[in-house]
Amino acid sequence: MKVDYRIKSISGYTEKIGELVSMLEHTREVTLQEIANLSQADLDALTDQSSNTIGALLMHIASIEFVHQVVSFEKRDLTDQEYADWKLPLELGDQARESIHHQPLDYYIDRLNQTRANTLARLTAKDDQWLLEEDKWSHGVPYNQYYLWFHVMEDEINHRGQIRAVKRLLNHGS
Amino acid sequence: MKVDYRIKSISGYTEKIGELVSMLEHTREVTLQEIANLSQADLDALTDQSSNTIGALLMHIASIEFVHQVVSFEKRDLTDQEYADWKLPLELGDQARESIHHQPLDYYIDRLNQTRANTLARLTAKDDQWLLEEDKWSHGVPYNQYYLWFHVMEDEINHRGQIRAVKRLLNHGS
Repeated sequence: MKVDYRIKSISGYTEKIGELVSMLEHTREVTLQEIANLSQADLDALTDQSSNTIGALLMHIASIEFVHQVVSFEKRDLTDQEYADWKLPLELGDQARESIHHQPLDYYIDRLNQTRANTLARLTAKDDQWLLEEDKWSHGVPYNQYYLWFHVMEDEINHRGQIRAVKRLLNHGS
Repeated sequence: MKVDYRIKSISGYTEKIGELVSMLEHTREVTLQEIANLSQADLDALTDQSSNTIGALLMHIASIEFVHQVVSFEKRDLTDQEYADWKLPLELGDQARESIHHQPLDYYIDRLNQTRANTLARLTAKDDQWLLEEDKWSHGVPYNQYYLWFHVMEDEINHRGQIRAVKRLLNHGS
């Protein structure tokens, strides 16, 4: 896999959305490169009882992107069914530690890819002005659309940092 | 400290550079919030022999920003003196584990702030077209200016994820 180290507007989107997609996709390329050679045992390994497995962190990355699709594109909270479907990877912790495992790497990559495909399809219909549209969270703090998608990237990078730390403990890298 | 959850162009810069600065500064606000209550003992704690202390990770964040200033604004490698000054936090590992410690939180915050002030001063003189200027690394892979500053943010978020994991092991958070 070849990673592109140029952030520039990707065609098929308006200019700034194309740049945001460039950042989102670069982030994902680096994540996929980071996990490319992991075995099912690596994905399930728990380095200590308060840590998360790499598999759970990958599902968490997909779950955060899903939640942001709902908030950003549909301007609503999760339905009960959606919450039930994504609760474990979204919240991590003990239940995720007990339940997310026994899957090969492709299972996680497929979930990441499916979620990303929907993000990209929805972003093609938006324009740069939309990025600045503001809303407020329930506690009254304002955010904008640009922030929501910045945060999807931020959360992925944050957890990729944790994946690296787990890999180091498994003696898989620096 | 109040964190702004809107990514939008900050005045004093051209439009896209102002948005990039918004992302860099949001990233930093969250990092500072993450470390706000840490003691010197927290900053020096080593959770296992292959980990990095939070203090060393904070110096690493400053060192990566410094290196990117040199590459981006001066288009050169570090001088021997600069390399000697920053080698430990830049490379982390055993020597950093032995040498970066015994400093209060303000020491790290000051280094972060000083480095950031220089980044912002230099970015005021650049324009959006500059973001797309390309160059190549010594192994021939192309990058552009936008990527360099995206990566400063990416590296900080990545290490903030590790700071969070260390804090969790020290029972300071989730």
